[in-house]
Amino acid sequence: MARINDDYEKLQAGYLFPEIGRRVAAFQSEHPDASVIRLGIGDVTLPLAPAVVQALHDATDEMGTAEGFRGYGPERGAEDFLLEGILEHDFTSRGVTLAKDEIFVSDGSKQDSGNIQEIFGRDCHIAVTDPVYPVYVDTNVMAGRTGAAGDSGRFAGILYLPATEENGFVPPPPDAPADIAYLCSPNNPTGSVASHAALAEWVAWAREHDAVIIYDAAYDAFIQDPSLPHSIYEVDGAKECAIEMRSFSKRAGFTGVRCAYTVVPHGVTGSDAAGQRVPLNGLWLRRHCTKFNGVPYVVQRAAGAVFSPEGRKQTQEQVAHYMSNAAYIRTGLTDAGFVCFGGEHAPYVWVRTPQGLSSWDCFDRILGEANVVTTPGSGFGASGEGYFRISAFNSRENVEAAVSRIQRAFAG
Amino acid sequence: MARINDDYEKLQAGYLFPEIGRRVAAFQSEHPDASVIRLGIGDVTLPLAPAVVQALHDATDEMGTAEGFRGYGPERGAEDFLLEGILEHDFTSRGVTLAKDEIFVSDGSKQDSGNIQEIFGRDCHIAVTDPVYPVYVDTNVMAGRTGAAGDSGRFAGILYLPATEENGFVPPPPDAPADIAYLCSPNNPTGSVASHAALAEWVAWAREHDAVIIYDAAYDAFIQDPSLPHSIYEVDGAKECAIEMRSFSKRAGFTGVRCAYTVVPHGVTGSDAAGQRVPLNGLWLRRHCTKFNGVPYVVQRAAGAVFSPEGRKQTQEQVAHYMSNAAYIRTGLTDAGFVCFGGEHAPYVWVRTPQGLSSWDCFDRILGEANVVTTPGSGFGASGEGYFRISAFNSRENVEAAVSRIQRAFAG
Repeated sequence: MARINDDYEKLQAGYLFPEIGRRVAAFQSEHPDASVIRLGIGDVTLPLAPAVVQALHDATDEMGTAEGFRGYGPERGAEDFLLEGILEHDFTSRGVTLAKDEIFVSDGSKQDSGNIQEIFGRDCHIAVTDPVYPVYVDTNVMAGRTGAAGDSGRFAGILYLPATEENGFVPPPPDAPADIAYLCSPNNPTGSVASHAALAEWVAWAREHDAVIIYDAAYDAFIQDPSLPHSIYEVDGAKECAIEMRSFSKRAGFTGVRCAYTVVPHGVTGSDAAGQRVPLNGLWLRRHCTKFNGVPYVVQRAAGAVFSPEGRKQTQEQVAHYMSNAAYIRTGLTDAGFVCFGGEHAPYVWVRTPQGLSSWDCFDRILGEANVVTTPGSGFGASGEGYFRISAFNSRENVEAAVSRIQRAFAG
Repeated sequence: MARINDDYEKLQAGYLFPEIGRRVAAFQSEHPDASVIRLGIGDVTLPLAPAVVQALHDATDEMGTAEGFRGYGPERGAEDFLLEGILEHDFTSRGVTLAKDEIFVSDGSKQDSGNIQEIFGRDCHIAVTDPVYPVYVDTNVMAGRTGAAGDSGRFAGILYLPATEENGFVPPPPDAPADIAYLCSPNNPTGSVASHAALAEWVAWAREHDAVIIYDAAYDAFIQDPSLPHSIYEVDGAKECAIEMRSFSKRAGFTGVRCAYTVVPHGVTGSDAAGQRVPLNGLWLRRHCTKFNGVPYVVQRAAGAVFSPEGRKQTQEQVAHYMSNAAYIRTGLTDAGFVCFGGEHAPYVWVRTPQGLSSWDCFDRILGEANVVTTPGSGFGASGEGYFRISAFNSRENVEAAVSRIQRAFAG
């Protein structure tokens, strides 16, 4: 008799964004004439940069010729040109030295941050900041590392670290030990960013407790202050305790193109049943070889073009556009009396709900009265209750209209 | 303390194809002048069909415009045009009726066949044919469903069904019960193909034992006899017990492009801890939404072009080329005294090793004396010992040279 994975039944009814999609679809079917502006899901809107478009065309032409055709890619999933671009522009330029075989290219940070837990033991205790990107939690629930969810939606067995106004939405390491901690900076959803000192505290904690940090830096391109760390490896000792994830999705508009990578330095180890230290690089390589088959060659060429001089210039302009939107949202909502956080080094503004509204009530009210889609903070965890996230990924015209509509809806 | 997933330590030293890669690299570094012909890994060699190339160009242009740009795809991972092409050409044309929400598009059948086990309970017993595509076994080992490997490489707790010359390399269902059975037809590695009657026997077995069949039809395009089933859903009752996987990799040369899909009919269920029936479609959807983010839009357009009139004609010509190679290999090796199987409805010929050689000894001899890369049968399982697989994916020139060299190496 085929038994299902009962842990799936512990999950909430739906992944957050499909649930939002259902509510928006219901609203639109009731109000077919409403012009809804979507600042909910963090999805880019600008077309691909010309350098990326050109690289896709060139690679497509290669694939159409006998000499240029590529089948399965290299074992680790990426061609040298892409690995070299990543090392030079994302790490060497920040003073971080890594090797090509510490980089694993994939089709998304969502996939990587969801799959990474597979290489750890089932009895590992995980810690997450709260609110949190739901994938970190849900994939550990599916893997059986938690008990059931309580009334607040928190799962038994997970250590939740509240990200609050008091700690600037960057929680310090816990007093209690944990085996694996997920950190995201610049943060989704709060838009906060961890300083070098904050990361150093985390690295010290991980080394003291023999824990592993899963560091999600998918939004690093949005950091405006050059003194803030883009990589956790800018902190001494992180190469012994941290795995880092990066993505082309937001920095270069690749949400519909799909390319990301994960760094597993050779120095990061875990312990096996016999107490032996085992490098996590080899375990992740085994997973990668067994359950993945590389990123499309044309996509690798597109990602490589992001590192060309034109590609860097064009994608930096895209980032500047979104960050200008974020500033507009922050200012506009602050003027309207909202209390805003984030949005300075991240494409998300994190907003306290007015009048004590719950996150979902505020979501429904903004959708109903301003016809703007946001994301309810409580969808990211219990500590997100009383906040909503608003995304800067849209045209300037839509952002201005959305801010103006929200101002009107909440006037007086 | 971060504990690793100890189940990874049960795995063999390397995934089969990386191990072959290492041996070939070692041979080439010792014999830099040798011209090695690769008929090992089943990787396509013909360039992408013109219709596919055109679709990639067109979609790239779309992605470069504000109106045509696409970010995240639909929740299920695919656009309607692709789902409609799949339903019409792969199923309706064979008399099989499925719904769009039963199709899940992904970046590869390797991924899907490796990930599908996640939705099942950890105590499920799995059955595989032997020899077998290693991913089915390795991913269940990683998930903790097996004991350690014995001397033959077989893992305790897995039911291995020998595919032998006596059963035409299509094992019948076991007498013993199992919860999940992996079938692959046309078969990798043996090149055998299951008849309608053989599949009907398997469906009857699954329904009797409340088991689920994972049916891997990645090579269906190579079937030459129109009376043979392409889909397990051509058998009555399969929509209540079978999940099917298909790929664009071999049928359209997509190994470096990456597109595949999995069918989970609404009627396929498993049992939860409370004894309730749970549709597997919903569980797979939850996994898909949580750990996957869709196939690149340009790749979806490329896959859609495979179903256009030109695309079908061009990719059928590619398949015909490879099948002509397979026939040439079968005839040439048979003439040289080898005993050959498969290669009539599959791009693989399965060959008995001569002179009682072990699979790896035969691999090393063919590499060393004929400078041809094959795949040792024992790499696919204990029952593959004494055989090797030779792939028809190459140019005609290389195939003719490889056959001629093997004939010379084994003459007299």
